[in-house]
This record gives sequence, C-alpha cells and structure tokens, in this order.
Amino acid sequence: MNRRTEILRRAAELFADKGVANTSIEHIATAVGIKREAIYYYFKSRHDILLEVLLPSSKSLLTGMRNIRRMDMTSPEKLRAAFENHLASFDPTYLEMSIALREDHFFADPSKLGQLQGTWDEYSNHWTELIREGQERGEFKDGLDPKMVAFGILGMCNWLSRWFDPSKGTSIDEIIDTYFTVTSNGLATTSPDIAAE
Amino acid sequence: MNRRTEILRRAAELFADKGVANTSIEHIATAVGIKREAIYYYFKSRHDILLEVLLPSSKSLLTGMRNIRRMDMTSPEKLRAAFENHLASFDPTYLEMSIALREDHFFADPSKLGQLQGTWDEYSNHWTELIREGQERGEFKDGLDPKMVAFGILGMCNWLSRWFDPSKGTSIDEIIDTYFTVTSNGLATTSPDIAAE
Repeated sequence: MNRRTEILRRAAELFADKGVANTSIEHIATAVGIKREAIYYYFKSRHDILLEVLLPSSKSLLTGMRNIRRMDMTSPEKLRAAFENHLASFDPTYLEMSIALREDHFFADPSKLGQLQGTWDEYSNHWTELIREGQERGEFKDGLDPKMVAFGILGMCNWLSRWFDPSKGTSIDEIIDTYFTVTSNGLATTSPDIAAE
Repeated sequence: MNRRTEILRRAAELFADKGVANTSIEHIATAVGIKREAIYYYFKSRHDILLEVLLPSSKSLLTGMRNIRRMDMTSPEKLRAAFENHLASFDPTYLEMSIALREDHFFADPSKLGQLQGTWDEYSNHWTELIREGQERGEFKDGLDPKMVAFGILGMCNWLSRWFDPSKGTSIDEIIDTYFTVTSNGLATTSPDIAAE
C-alpha cells in the first residue's frame, strides 16, 4: 500500500468510526504514523480526502447501474440485478458506503461534495427509470409513482449502512434474495386485490 | 409556548439544520434569545436536550406499534397500520424524526442515549414479530427471515429522513399506499414463481 492509499484507508476507518465531523487531519496523520504536514503533500483538505474516499465506490455503483439499464432482460430481472449491484457493494466497500450514507459531513461543506451529489442523483434517476420502464412494458404494476417506489427501494438498500456488519456473517446474497422477493412478489399470500383493500 | 418548550423547539431546529455535533448550548441560547446560563436552569447538557427532543416521538411510535400488534386484524392489515403509524409520524414530528435517524450524535456520547436505543430496539422487534406472526398464520410468504424483512421495511420508512420534505407537498398518504402495495403485493405483474427465478 503506498502512502497515498494508506492515508485514504486510515481516513476511511476514522470517518466510519468517529464520524467525519470528529476526524481531523491530525487524527489521520497519527493513524498513518506521519506528520500533519505530510498529509498536505497529498491532499488539500479533509474534504478532499473525504471526496476521494467516497467517489470511487459511488462511481462504480453508477457504472453498474448504467450497464443494467442497457441489458436485454425483463424488468424483474433488472430489478434483481440492480439489488445485486447495490448491495454487493456493501461487501468490499462497506466502510465507504457507510460513510457516504451518513449525512453529518454534508453539514460541514455541501459545495465540496457536489461531484458526489451529481453521481448519486444520476444513480437514483436510473432506479426511477427502471421502475417506470417496467410499468410501461406491463411487467410492473401500474399506478405507483416510480420515483416514490425507487426511493423506497433505495431506502431498504441504504439502511444497511445502519445495521449491516460484514463481520457478523449476515449473507449479502440472502439480503438480495429477500429484498428482491419482497419488492417483486410481495409478502402477502392472499391475492393482491384482497390484500390491497 | 413556555421557556422550556421553546428551548426544546429551537434546539430541534438547530439539530436538524446544523447537526447535533455543530450545535452548542450557546447556539441554542442565542436562538431562544436568553443567556447560556439560563439553559442550564432547565437542562444539564446538550445531550439531555437531545434526549428530550427525541424521546417523546420515539415513545409514541412504540406505543402505536404495541397497540397494532394487539389488534384483531389480518397480517396485511397490521402491516398497513404499521406503515401508517411510522410514516404519519414524519408529518407532525418531522424534525425530531430526522434528527433521530441521523447517527452523528451517537458518536459523541452513545451511553447518554441508552434509553432511546432501548425504545428503538423494542420497536424494531415488534416489526420482526409482526412479519413472523404473518408467516405463522400463513398470511405472509414463508422462507424469508422476518428480521431481514423488518429491517428492509424500516429502511424504506426511515430513509424518508433523507428525502421527505413536508413543505414540498409529497403526500404521506401516497407514500403509505405505495410502500404497502410494494411490500404486500410486489411490483411484478407476472406470477411470483416466474419472477423469482
């Protein structure tokens, strides 16, 4: 691990552990075992570090979603693939996802994270369009607002940042199966018309 | 509004706006238009204020859920009532819910908020048991982990703290309908077996 990568890694751990607001350049330097000034050789500020911690995983989430949208699959298949794309990212980049999904650091300096916001906006639009496309194809039920559905599903997924702990052995594959089954087929065993009354 | 209530109200606005970590007793005093010392007549610390801002809405959420669990209804009906109980609380107590659902303040002093944690734990257990009961009655599909389902649904609901803005006219009733339909009946129009493949 080179020095730059090590700074990013230790910073990610500190951000996840203490929160961005409670992590200083000093803390990061101590964790790496270098002087405060040495950090500035690589990064201009704490927010630059934060952006570089968060941007790669956000971009890879978006790239995965763009590819899914273009694939030749049914809408339920795309829904499942989108769950896989999103939830699997909690495994290798759990720290980054957790930091990204807390919002305390946005209070500090929203403008710095504009690039990140753009990536997320495009990403959540893809979810909305995936639902809308399914409705237009007649593969998803009509009459639900696609954006509202998309935000609900993103909430299910993003809430993992609050409870999922990769060290505790909960299987991401089981979460993917469960969330897909719930949102695609529903929990109720009775016919939809009865349950929806 | 008496002085005590006013302190709590202004504190809630500041916590929601700037985050708990960035709100001092000084800020709260200025917002109320009193001296810092006058706050201490009512509250021992910022965390005492935070606890009193958050506890009433959390307790009322739990009370509502306890009542739903005891009611003579089918499981899909209980699911709908539980969505109503949870999501309707975003309307009158939007600020409090938003603050409660961010976690930055937990970094500062987790022990202080133990009472709150206990309330939330009991609340989310009720969700898990509601799903489990539905499975045992044959009203919800078998084979899904009830806790995983509950956490998914809580994620949908709690994510409102990140996007819902009561001033923007999105209807809580429509959100309730949408989330209930998605989780109870699913999005797919094809038969569950085909969609689940």
